[in-house]
Amino acid sequence: MAPPARAPFAAWLAGGNDITAAFLAAAGRPGMINLAGGLPDPALFPVEELAALAAAAVRERPAEVLGYGPVAGLPALRDALASRLSGPALRLGRDNLLVVSGGLQALDLIGKVLLEEGATVAAQWPTYLGALDAWRPRRPRYRPLMPGATATELAAACTGAAFAYAVPNFSNPTGRLVPGGERHALVAAARAAGTWLVEDDPYGSLGYGGPLPPRLIELAAADRPGAVYDGTVVYLGTLSKEVVPGLRVGWVAAAPDMIAALARARQGADMCGSGLTQAVALGALAAGLPERLAAAAVAHYRGRRDALLAAMDAELAGRFAWEVPEGGMFVWARARDQGLDTDRLFDAALAAGVCITPGSVFDPAGRDRGAIRLNFTLNPPDRLAEGVRRLAAAVAATG
Amino acid sequence: MAPPARAPFAAWLAGGNDITAAFLAAAGRPGMINLAGGLPDPALFPVEELAALAAAAVRERPAEVLGYGPVAGLPALRDALASRLSGPALRLGRDNLLVVSGGLQALDLIGKVLLEEGATVAAQWPTYLGALDAWRPRRPRYRPLMPGATATELAAACTGAAFAYAVPNFSNPTGRLVPGGERHALVAAARAAGTWLVEDDPYGSLGYGGPLPPRLIELAAADRPGAVYDGTVVYLGTLSKEVVPGLRVGWVAAAPDMIAALARARQGADMCGSGLTQAVALGALAAGLPERLAAAAVAHYRGRRDALLAAMDAELAGRFAWEVPEGGMFVWARARDQGLDTDRLFDAALAAGVCITPGSVFDPAGRDRGAIRLNFTLNPPDRLAEGVRRLAAAVAATG
Repeated sequence: MAPPARAPFAAWLAGGNDITAAFLAAAGRPGMINLAGGLPDPALFPVEELAALAAAAVRERPAEVLGYGPVAGLPALRDALASRLSGPALRLGRDNLLVVSGGLQALDLIGKVLLEEGATVAAQWPTYLGALDAWRPRRPRYRPLMPGATATELAAACTGAAFAYAVPNFSNPTGRLVPGGERHALVAAARAAGTWLVEDDPYGSLGYGGPLPPRLIELAAADRPGAVYDGTVVYLGTLSKEVVPGLRVGWVAAAPDMIAALARARQGADMCGSGLTQAVALGALAAGLPERLAAAAVAHYRGRRDALLAAMDAELAGRFAWEVPEGGMFVWARARDQGLDTDRLFDAALAAGVCITPGSVFDPAGRDRGAIRLNFTLNPPDRLAEGVRRLAAAVAATG
Repeated sequence: MAPPARAPFAAWLAGGNDITAAFLAAAGRPGMINLAGGLPDPALFPVEELAALAAAAVRERPAEVLGYGPVAGLPALRDALASRLSGPALRLGRDNLLVVSGGLQALDLIGKVLLEEGATVAAQWPTYLGALDAWRPRRPRYRPLMPGATATELAAACTGAAFAYAVPNFSNPTGRLVPGGERHALVAAARAAGTWLVEDDPYGSLGYGGPLPPRLIELAAADRPGAVYDGTVVYLGTLSKEVVPGLRVGWVAAAPDMIAALARARQGADMCGSGLTQAVALGALAAGLPERLAAAAVAHYRGRRDALLAAMDAELAGRFAWEVPEGGMFVWARARDQGLDTDRLFDAALAAGVCITPGSVFDPAGRDRGAIRLNFTLNPPDRLAEGVRRLAAAVAATG
């Protein structure tokens, strides 16, 4: 007997991009060189420290670590994060902090508390794929915040939007570092429009050049110096790049009313986070692990970035143009020939044994088929070079 | 300078029930006897085993445990769960299983993949508060599935609903065990209506009486014996009651197309679960930990149930009526006097030093103010008795 007819899935599931599922599946194939994901090198994982922290957390605080925990996160972890993020330009307390299961959960919760069905989001373009995935169930409209937009253009994009979204430090996918002047203009535009401004900052610790401009949240705090933060910027951070992704520990720093709304949404999303992973995160912060790991990670990944760029210079310079990213995990390359379809190149590259990310997945409308994103953190230099050789062969085959 | 005006929060945040926030906050106050939550006794946590499993997981499989993982969960854990749930009446493979961050995340994902704004849910009444919280952002309409409903009534409730929802084993909040005949009728009604049927089963291992009737998912599999499961029931389980809540490891067993849709939703909800907590869960299953813990938990909690009921018999029998729950964590008691407002009793009880859950939070419309839910798993017998004495004083004061 055939199974009976069933109620349909919600309409948003029919949207989206099949390429995403294809590259997630392809990246795991044997022999494939994976330049697609934003994956760290497991060789950098502080295995022994984390094993010891995990066992100690369970033994020393079993009721807190193994029981249900507070929706907003372990109080001691919220305090530690508030203290770590505070400085001369920013004063944060526990009520400014929400612990989340990775930065992506923060994006999901932000969609829940700010987006009515079909609302407008002003998003830095091209846009992080995970953010598009997180907000897809609400089917928002997008307005692009283009690199180098003028104050007037930023103001127009923010007006009437439920929120604006930016990755100012080494954006995913472009690797771009938003300069200080543009940061000031963005915060001013959001404030004038009465729009929340989401600052997603997973890559701030992975800078391979000089010091960074101020964070947007610091600029938003500047009008009320010394006061507990109550500004328009909603700041997202994570331990995924600073320590390891597998803890799934990230955080939101925002005005207390926003934190309360996000916590209410989280109560209905997964009740609370794991006490075990939060306690390990707290132990890692207390031990200064992110600071100890940072120098090695920066040197390691800077070398890999340079290896990828050298291979690209040798193999792809005639067909693609790119900027040298000053941080993060990616090089964004645009085809010189507008006729080169990077969705088709994705397929040809898979056939040649290398997985890349086609630019279309970072375009809310899925139309931009002229760029690719290449990751340089996961693979050693020789694999990066071989991946680029395979990609060049695929480019030649695609025409 | 005052902060600028800001874009409003989504409308669903204005709905819901202030009582929920009040009882979550109150339960932690010093001296308060907490009969409100559904919390296990930390004395039962297998601390040393979990500490050892956590350290071993990190050391033995660091790349898998500390890196990003597959959206649907660690393959070995999906296989272990499929094998554990399979039996003569049910055949499950990896594609039937999704690992989630606690049962509540499954409810959130189900809402995302099945509910358009304002869709209809046929829900066992009264309804688990967490399910109502999970679906609130979609603002569904509810049709009650009343205890003991006839086949005709069940069919009418399911027709046109996006899905039906039931907690057949020791329902939260009532503790009711749905009898076999009603289970058959519910599955038949859902199948005839083409409605998905969500079977939420956190308490199945906490039975204090005889054997349980078949699971709904087993009944739904019966029409295609021996085939890999592709039925209308979506089954939810969790380690929160069988091992510990703090791992946040639960699972969905369902037809492969439902699992694929839920995984797509999860990709945008938090990307993937923690490899650490999943590896500990896998180790706990492999070591037979749930089975070893079950007998002690059942004996421990049966004694506490009996202690709560004895105290209620002594102090509350004139004012409330209740059924003896054959399992789970709760006694559901209805006021004999229809004039007793249990939202007001909640406040009076807090003032008397005991936190209970008022029945209104389990009513989608928030109107039922004639019942209370009392938990018996967290507190030892003497605290249960003292809590009931305080509650009786509050009842007298409420009038």
